[in-house]
Amino acid sequence: MNAAPGALMSAEISEQPTVLSGLLSAADGISSASSAILERSPRFVMLAARGTSDHAALYAKYLVETRLGLPAGLASPSSMTLYGSRPDLRDVLFLGVSQSGASPDLVDSMTVAGECGATTVAVTNNPSSALAAAAEFHVDVRAGAEQAVAATKTYTAELLALYLLLGGSSADALPDAAAATLASGDVARAAARYRFAERLVTTGRGFGYPTAREAALKLMETSYLSAQAFSTADLLHGPLAMIDSGVPVIAVATPDAGGAAVAPVVSQLRSSGADVLVVGEDLPVVRDGVPPELSPVLDILPLQRLAWQVAIDRGENPDRPRGLSKVTETR
Amino acid sequence: MNAAPGALMSAEISEQPTVLSGLLSAADGISSASSAILERSPRFVMLAARGTSDHAALYAKYLVETRLGLPAGLASPSSMTLYGSRPDLRDVLFLGVSQSGASPDLVDSMTVAGECGATTVAVTNNPSSALAAAAEFHVDVRAGAEQAVAATKTYTAELLALYLLLGGSSADALPDAAAATLASGDVARAAARYRFAERLVTTGRGFGYPTAREAALKLMETSYLSAQAFSTADLLHGPLAMIDSGVPVIAVATPDAGGAAVAPVVSQLRSSGADVLVVGEDLPVVRDGVPPELSPVLDILPLQRLAWQVAIDRGENPDRPRGLSKVTETR
Repeated sequence: MNAAPGALMSAEISEQPTVLSGLLSAADGISSASSAILERSPRFVMLAARGTSDHAALYAKYLVETRLGLPAGLASPSSMTLYGSRPDLRDVLFLGVSQSGASPDLVDSMTVAGECGATTVAVTNNPSSALAAAAEFHVDVRAGAEQAVAATKTYTAELLALYLLLGGSSADALPDAAAATLASGDVARAAARYRFAERLVTTGRGFGYPTAREAALKLMETSYLSAQAFSTADLLHGPLAMIDSGVPVIAVATPDAGGAAVAPVVSQLRSSGADVLVVGEDLPVVRDGVPPELSPVLDILPLQRLAWQVAIDRGENPDRPRGLSKVTETR
Repeated sequence: MNAAPGALMSAEISEQPTVLSGLLSAADGISSASSAILERSPRFVMLAARGTSDHAALYAKYLVETRLGLPAGLASPSSMTLYGSRPDLRDVLFLGVSQSGASPDLVDSMTVAGECGATTVAVTNNPSSALAAAAEFHVDVRAGAEQAVAATKTYTAELLALYLLLGGSSADALPDAAAATLASGDVARAAARYRFAERLVTTGRGFGYPTAREAALKLMETSYLSAQAFSTADLLHGPLAMIDSGVPVIAVATPDAGGAAVAPVVSQLRSSGADVLVVGEDLPVVRDGVPPELSPVLDILPLQRLAWQVAIDRGENPDRPRGLSKVTETR
């Protein structure tokens, strides 16, 4: 009750190597589900999620497209829940991602998707949730109870669970790399820079884009600054106009083609006077033995710490952001 | 050369009823393309676009899901262009939307999509563009040359072209409704309210969401304020924390289930002290004889005028935003 502000979020950030390790010890169960699902030979994957889990779903979209070679799309739940659409979903894998598994519009979408012929899978942190019950398959991300409103360990656990579910099998080095990444970098110094920032832009491309989106949400919900995420490609189509020396940029440099496409834009921004922090460079990420596809699990870690630190510096309590509750009942 | 600041954008905003009318006179050609495409019985629709056209693609996604009853997703061009993914796209309709038809990554995605078995369609304002050439079918949105960097008439023309392409046939009342909407409302007074705003949130749901996204982009690129768009459902998952009386909200109230879902959130925001402007109420939209599915063509009109006015009030030139060029060469 009288815990220090941010104590819950800080503890949950630190737990992540242990959570990832625990999830890996249950990888066989996820692989079995994966085999059973892929035996159905889906032609297309639909992903449904909200908030932080939507960024995990975006990660899954890149995995589906690049690993499985299948087209994938993020579902618009409102099409089915508000507009009553009943699409033909035979040969479709419908994948819902939710920490709580309780959001009514996701549960309704999952139910409708199953009725429309989809193979339905729920990825949640609650095996007894309504979403888990509504799906044919359930993957438990096994992150333990998450008490801070700002999700951290359930996000990285969702990412790893999705990687395993979509056929990934090279994650053994991940817990140690996560621990080493959490122990690296002068996050307090980086955070000091944003003490009085009112707005901020995050950017990444490909596997770096979900991290940019999630970092922006963490900063918004803990520190109340207007953080906007753009795909680095979209940044050049309009939003670039609003970036000047007063709008700092955080760029995510993944160790792959996405990161390579970000580098020239970082140079362009810097030469125009923008303040740019590059995750993977200015804030280090330890990637020893971890395949590039898993880098989103690591890249978000210094950014979670950054969001926490900016909130603390501003005298906010990142465990209990104003106006938010842990389970959001969107209908 | 010495035109008044914003003269081009203002003229192009005013041209929209004429552009829509001209496009309707070519509706038969689009219907023929539509029939030929739908005869292929696609099972899934992928949409690819950037910037303003991405919001037209999002509109198309709702149309595909609700009118055609097919699952649809926005493509991540980087999967194919940066990561070399070659997905199985048999039975897939791949729809690229671009004002210029010149963005290299869209052209590459379209080419790869065709090679992977998709039926490919380009919707552009340039029949001799590379994107038009790369696609099996081309729909010309016939908006005439657009000279202001901030796209207006090509956006609404894309929306109408997509409506016609996806089987819509009740657009006759649209040009008059657009003219009446452009003639209504005290936009200058609404704009004065945002003279010193540094950040702003836009929101909508379902068919209102593309409008919220496009309005945020117009405000960013012409007035350099940090405008963030959220689906009204996502707004409750985090971003709500940063909205206080200092962050104004623009909500889009479509005359359908999406708008009905926005109304209680507007009430909640207002009761918490937020400043909310509702498009369709505080800024009027004339909808006589126009089906709800076409409301995005009308709802954006007062918001284009608002973005123009805020830019002028701030002494900016919305025809030539800093740092932007008309054709963005993303790779």
